[in-house]
Amino acid sequence: MKAPTPLEALLKDRVALAVGSELRAIEEAIAFEIDSPVALIREMGEFIAGAGGKRLRPILLLIAARLAGYRGPRAVRMGCVVELLHTATLIHDDVVDQAPLRRGRPSANARWGDDASVLVGDHLYSKSFALMVQDGDPRVLEALARATVSMTEAEVFQLERKRSGVTSESDYVRIITQKTASFMSACCRIGALLGAATPERVEGLSRYGLEIGIAFQISDDSLDFVADQARLGKAVGADLREGKRTLPLIATLDRSEPAERERIQSLLKSHALDPAEIEEIRRLVVKYEGVEYALARAHAYAQGAKEALAPFPAGEDRETLALIADFVVDRDS
Amino acid sequence: MKAPTPLEALLKDRVALAVGSELRAIEEAIAFEIDSPVALIREMGEFIAGAGGKRLRPILLLIAARLAGYRGPRAVRMGCVVELLHTATLIHDDVVDQAPLRRGRPSANARWGDDASVLVGDHLYSKSFALMVQDGDPRVLEALARATVSMTEAEVFQLERKRSGVTSESDYVRIITQKTASFMSACCRIGALLGAATPERVEGLSRYGLEIGIAFQISDDSLDFVADQARLGKAVGADLREGKRTLPLIATLDRSEPAERERIQSLLKSHALDPAEIEEIRRLVVKYEGVEYALARAHAYAQGAKEALAPFPAGEDRETLALIADFVVDRDS
Repeated sequence: MKAPTPLEALLKDRVALAVGSELRAIEEAIAFEIDSPVALIREMGEFIAGAGGKRLRPILLLIAARLAGYRGPRAVRMGCVVELLHTATLIHDDVVDQAPLRRGRPSANARWGDDASVLVGDHLYSKSFALMVQDGDPRVLEALARATVSMTEAEVFQLERKRSGVTSESDYVRIITQKTASFMSACCRIGALLGAATPERVEGLSRYGLEIGIAFQISDDSLDFVADQARLGKAVGADLREGKRTLPLIATLDRSEPAERERIQSLLKSHALDPAEIEEIRRLVVKYEGVEYALARAHAYAQGAKEALAPFPAGEDRETLALIADFVVDRDS
Repeated sequence: MKAPTPLEALLKDRVALAVGSELRAIEEAIAFEIDSPVALIREMGEFIAGAGGKRLRPILLLIAARLAGYRGPRAVRMGCVVELLHTATLIHDDVVDQAPLRRGRPSANARWGDDASVLVGDHLYSKSFALMVQDGDPRVLEALARATVSMTEAEVFQLERKRSGVTSESDYVRIITQKTASFMSACCRIGALLGAATPERVEGLSRYGLEIGIAFQISDDSLDFVADQARLGKAVGADLREGKRTLPLIATLDRSEPAERERIQSLLKSHALDPAEIEEIRRLVVKYEGVEYALARAHAYAQGAKEALAPFPAGEDRETLALIADFVVDRDS
C-alpha cells in the first residue's frame, strides 16, 4: 500500500475531527443491523461490512447535516441506512457483473454464490428500509424512494446499453447521474433536511451531492485504466473485461481513426478479453487521451459541486465538503 | 385446462362482485408503474405482469379493507404496492432457484438472464417502496417493513437449511411463516389499518392472514407432489429437483424405515435428480401419506384463520375471507 496523498491525509483528519464519533456510532449501528439469528446473514454481513470501504455516503450525510446546523442522533441512524443500502447495491452489482473481487478480496458472490448474494442483498435492503421507516420523516423517505427508483432504473438501462454494444457519452452521463450521483445527492439532501435548512440550501446540498457523484464515478471509471491493482482492490481493466463502456473509452472511440474504432468494437464484442487485448485497448485510450478527457470532465463537475455550496456561509464544514469534491477526482484508489 | 372447482367458481364470483372494479384499477396501476423509458423494464414488466397470477395478496388486502369498513382510493394503491413487491420476490426467487418455468411460461431469468432479473426485481421493489412512501401512513409502512425483513431473512435461512441438507418440521414452519405468511398477514393488516379498525380487529385480521399464509404454502408445496403439470404451470417435482425439503417430504422422512430414509437422503444429495429418482421419492411420499399429513396441517391452519375473524360480525366480507381460507387448501393449481 502506498502512503495516502496529502489531500487524503488532510481530509481524513478533518473528517475524523468533525464527525469521527458519529462515524464510529454508525459502525456500531451497522454491526447491530447485520447481526442475525441466521448464520449466513451474520457471516456475509460481517465479511462485507468488515471489508471497510470509504464510507463516503455516511460521511457526506454527516457533514451535510452539520453544515445545515443539525446536531442530534438522527444523522447516525440515517448514515447507517444509506450505508446498508449502498452495501446491498454493491452485492447485487457484483452478481450482475460476475465480479470476482471487491475491495481486494473475493466478492460475496465468488465466496458464497449468486443465490446467497441475491438474498442477502435483498435482506440488507429491507433492513435499511425498516430503519428509515423507524425514523419516519416523510421528506427523507421521499428522497430515498426517488433515489432508489432512479438507481435501479439506471442499472437496467446500463445493462441494456451494454447488451446493445453502444453507449454514447450522453447515455453514460445519464447512467452515472441516475445511479451513483442521485444516491450521493440523496445523502446530502437528507443531511440538509435533518438540519431543517431553507429550500435554497436543501437544493444547494442536493446539487452538490449530484455533481460530486458524477465526478466520483468518472474518476472511478478512469482508475480502471490507470490504477495499481493492489491499491484499487480489483483488477485493472475489470470494466473492460465486463464489456462496460465508460467515459475514457467512449472518448477514445469518438476520437480514434475508423480502423482503430472498428478494432475496439470487435474486441469488445468478444466475451473474454485476454490481457493482451486489454492492453491493446488501453494503449489506444492512452493515445487519444481518453483518461485526460474524462478527468477534465470530472474536474468540471467537482467545480460545479463547490459552487453549489454558495448558499452556505464559508466555514469549516463547507470547506470540508469542498475538499471532498477535490478528493473524489484526485484520488488514486 | 380443467374447469374450476365449484369453490373456485363461487369465490371468483363473490370476489368480482365485491372488489372487481378495484381489482381492475389495480391492474391499471400496475401497468402504469411498470411502464418505463427503459425498454427492458417495460418488456420484462409486461411479460411478468401479463402472466397474471391469482392476485391473492391484493384480493386479501381489498376484502380485509372492506371488512374493516374502508371505502376509498388507498386500497387500490396499496394493492398495487403489495403485488409489485410480490412480483419482485418471485423474480429473485426464480434466479435463486434457477427455475426454468413460472406460471407455465419461461421464467424471467430463463428468458432475459439472471443479471436482468436481479436488476428488474430490484427496480420493482423500489417502485413498490416509492408508492408506499407516497401513501405515507406510518403504520402501513411499518407493517411492510416488518414483513420484508422477515421474508428476506427467511429466504436466507431456507437457503442455509437447503445447503445443510437438513430441514426439520419446525424449520419448515418457521420458513413459511416468515416468508409467505408474514406477507399475507401484512396485506390483511394493511386492510384493517385502512379501515381504522380497533386493535383487536387489526390483530384478528393479521392473524387471519398469517394462518392462511401458512395453509397456502403447505398446500402449494403439496401440489408439487400431486398436481398436473399443465394446470400448475411448472414441472411436478420441481421443488424436489431443486433440493427443497417441504412438509410432505419431511413427514415421509420422519415416518419411513431407516433404509428408506437413507435412500431419500442420498438421492437428495445428488445434484440432478432424474425423473425415475423423483418418481421413487414420490412413491415413498405416497406410501407414508406425506401429502395427507401436510394437508391435514394446512386444514388446521385454515380453521385457525377462520376463527381469527371472530372479532368481526358475520356478513358478506367475512364469509368471503372464510371461503378464501377453504380455497387455499382445496385447490388443484
